[in-house]
Amino acid sequence: MVQSPLVRELIEAFRCLPGVGPKSAQRMTYALLQRDRGGAQQLARALDAAVEGVGECEQCRTLSETAVCGLCASDRRDAGVLCIVENPADIQALEDATDYRGRYFVLKGRLSPLDGIGPAELGLEVLEARFNRGEVREIILATNPTVEGEATAQYVAEMARGADIRVSRIAHGVPLGGDLEYVDSGTLSHAFAGRSNYE
Amino acid sequence: MVQSPLVRELIEAFRCLPGVGPKSAQRMTYALLQRDRGGAQQLARALDAAVEGVGECEQCRTLSETAVCGLCASDRRDAGVLCIVENPADIQALEDATDYRGRYFVLKGRLSPLDGIGPAELGLEVLEARFNRGEVREIILATNPTVEGEATAQYVAEMARGADIRVSRIAHGVPLGGDLEYVDSGTLSHAFAGRSNYE
Repeated sequence: MVQSPLVRELIEAFRCLPGVGPKSAQRMTYALLQRDRGGAQQLARALDAAVEGVGECEQCRTLSETAVCGLCASDRRDAGVLCIVENPADIQALEDATDYRGRYFVLKGRLSPLDGIGPAELGLEVLEARFNRGEVREIILATNPTVEGEATAQYVAEMARGADIRVSRIAHGVPLGGDLEYVDSGTLSHAFAGRSNYE
Repeated sequence: MVQSPLVRELIEAFRCLPGVGPKSAQRMTYALLQRDRGGAQQLARALDAAVEGVGECEQCRTLSETAVCGLCASDRRDAGVLCIVENPADIQALEDATDYRGRYFVLKGRLSPLDGIGPAELGLEVLEARFNRGEVREIILATNPTVEGEATAQYVAEMARGADIRVSRIAHGVPLGGDLEYVDSGTLSHAFAGRSNYE
């Protein structure tokens, strides 16, 4: 190893990013140290600020630095319609692709008993309590079209039917086994518009 | 925009990394905030430490947190042989691929008059002074095989010949227009071993 320890540590630290292997980490390190130290400091500040300040919205569980996120706080969004997604990133994808005007609920995962992820980890008790308060009249299931995503959708649908809520599922225009976050807007828009009642 | 300001700022900050577009930046942000806040803090620390602590070696101009880098300080490296490279990352690539036991000199760029990069920016006065002190008996030109890299090699070769130093150039097994840092080790090893006298 010919790199100085701090350089090596920075390369190592970049490996925590998704999709970044040893070569990319090295490239990022050299690029920042040689050409963009200002950017590096800004990135360090932004990381600290986000880790420090960003928690989750107490209503929809998305990433938020306020107790209630902007979408849940907005009275221009219909509180009677709830779109159920797996990840905060899915909200952004849906907002970009559709003209949905309801609100969201983020599961932060999917039912996966083998990994110890059950209804409690996904905040489903909170969701059920909300269903039972009667403020929600419709839900749209937008979990990923994977086996676990389907099972999760089934589970939430059961809960909703128990509270007499209309349930729909986004259409399977989304390719099976795909990841909602990375689908192109057109496909996602069609899938959202062509949602069907959930049996 | 449905993201909270701190999340948005972090996504923006990730854009300073090479090869990171809006989608990757978003993916990195969500991945860290949802699953690896420890990694995010460590990355922030490593960025700060590196920006703060890493300067350049006063002998070879590579990134170093000490006044003289490990390679230049080591008495197990032949001080009479100098390999001239464009970037600090090239040193790592050559060290990994070859059994070179001499030292390095990092230009931190290449001659490019249109961009205002002349001999002074590449530290060539320093290099020339070193040539004239007579401690260097051989140089190996390992600049990238691009037009500017070739011009730079020519320029350094002239300087060296003036000081009666043997000059060689790594072989053009390295694909033309390529970037030294990303060539596979085998090609690089061959190019290094098959270097020829520089005319």
